[in-house]
Amino acid sequence: MSAKSNSLRRAGAYVHGYSGREDQRLRDQAQTLAELLHHDTVYPPGSRVLEAGCGVGAQTVILAQNSPGARFTSVDVSPESVNAATAAVHRAGFSNVTLQTADIFKLPFPKAGFDHVFACFVLEHLREPARALRCLKAVLKPGGTLTVIEGDHGSTLFHPRSDAAWKTIQCLIDLQARAGGDALIGRRLFPLLRAAGFRRVSVSPRFVYVDASRPVWVKGFTRNTYIAMVEGVRDRALAAGLISRRAWDQGISGLKASAGFGGVFCYTFFKAVAVKA
Amino acid sequence: MSAKSNSLRRAGAYVHGYSGREDQRLRDQAQTLAELLHHDTVYPPGSRVLEAGCGVGAQTVILAQNSPGARFTSVDVSPESVNAATAAVHRAGFSNVTLQTADIFKLPFPKAGFDHVFACFVLEHLREPARALRCLKAVLKPGGTLTVIEGDHGSTLFHPRSDAAWKTIQCLIDLQARAGGDALIGRRLFPLLRAAGFRRVSVSPRFVYVDASRPVWVKGFTRNTYIAMVEGVRDRALAAGLISRRAWDQGISGLKASAGFGGVFCYTFFKAVAVKA
Repeated sequence: MSAKSNSLRRAGAYVHGYSGREDQRLRDQAQTLAELLHHDTVYPPGSRVLEAGCGVGAQTVILAQNSPGARFTSVDVSPESVNAATAAVHRAGFSNVTLQTADIFKLPFPKAGFDHVFACFVLEHLREPARALRCLKAVLKPGGTLTVIEGDHGSTLFHPRSDAAWKTIQCLIDLQARAGGDALIGRRLFPLLRAAGFRRVSVSPRFVYVDASRPVWVKGFTRNTYIAMVEGVRDRALAAGLISRRAWDQGISGLKASAGFGGVFCYTFFKAVAVKA
Repeated sequence: MSAKSNSLRRAGAYVHGYSGREDQRLRDQAQTLAELLHHDTVYPPGSRVLEAGCGVGAQTVILAQNSPGARFTSVDVSPESVNAATAAVHRAGFSNVTLQTADIFKLPFPKAGFDHVFACFVLEHLREPARALRCLKAVLKPGGTLTVIEGDHGSTLFHPRSDAAWKTIQCLIDLQARAGGDALIGRRLFPLLRAAGFRRVSVSPRFVYVDASRPVWVKGFTRNTYIAMVEGVRDRALAAGLISRRAWDQGISGLKASAGFGGVFCYTFFKAVAVKA
């Protein structure tokens, strides 16, 4: 879900340093989505938290804001992303975050060095999510929590119904699968975390429902997050021969109808919290 | 979704007059689902409420229980169902419910005769849900509320993923469509109610999430409600040539895996509340 993650991360980045009515609406949306996904992630003062796969820092600033007394170590495998995240954290004025480049599969931290671990929109990109969970478990102290948040494109539901629109979403799912990821990983967080040996695995779905009575979400989520994410893989989908140009355009039109006056759009995120025994 | 409705109604009926551990578990499930769907439907004392399409009375007894001071008129087009609902209401000991056979499209009530109208798992069965809404609006007084609850089989999400399982669900969707209904109606309550002229339409999805940490739901919802509902159309699906016997058995096995230890099952109901201007 790289396009999506990027899109979500972009939306998050808007929280800082922009102005104007349009930006305000996107800021509202980003904050509302942040509220939906992250409001119940609060770490005690003094606790050491690893954020694995911080990307450009969209979640990092939310974590730092919600738990000002915790000390975050946010890592990403991409140095460019870490640079962007560092800039975002500085812009937001947080001093409780340390950022560094690191690979989830080769974490440069002592065993049981963290009180808690957090990973959002990360496992979906990994060829070996189960092994990643074991690596994260190794740096977590016994009794500490792991929090994982993922989407699931199979949860996408919209009106008017459109097979053409589904074909564009399927392109996204297929491209992510070809890259070794799983855009449908959200639904299987429970078995993944249990298999990795975590205890007290508790999954809480976060359902996003959007109709014309929620214009901020129509624009901020349906159009500027979800449809923008799908549109982001157009060239790759065409180049891979997954779909014709004409079918693509029909599909995007179908998706856009769900953001129209009589349209409805739904999507489910899955959030899991578990404990290391 | 007749099989489903029946199944849900059967589950509801268990709330009254059975005993034993097994029944207790189903009672727990029925009550939890009732809580999820109906906890926020409470009518003021003295208000006159029409329940349109009461079936065998599973929702009727919940309504009567949650709003003991309201006076309910519950109707169904099937005299047999009305008899069953009457028995259920008497068993439960409620005296604030009047039952009678009536057709939603030819309601034998004066215009604007009700303060509120309630319809659960009804529109999905109707060839003309939009016209049904206009008929219900006619007997509702201005300022009164309409409450509609529907499922949406397209919201079904499970792990392990199984194309075979989806084929059995598709049989259910196809059979309901052949009967003039729409098993995917939940997602479009908002446009339906708006088009029928209702105001302040507010839709709230009710997401059912089931994994092995929720054994009451695994048994009560995934197995005994959803899978039982799908299994209920087996003979009709085979007779209609929608699927082979072998494919059916594979599909049901696939569905049952979602109720296994590493399985996950999700389903979304949609509840809409709107006001007559």
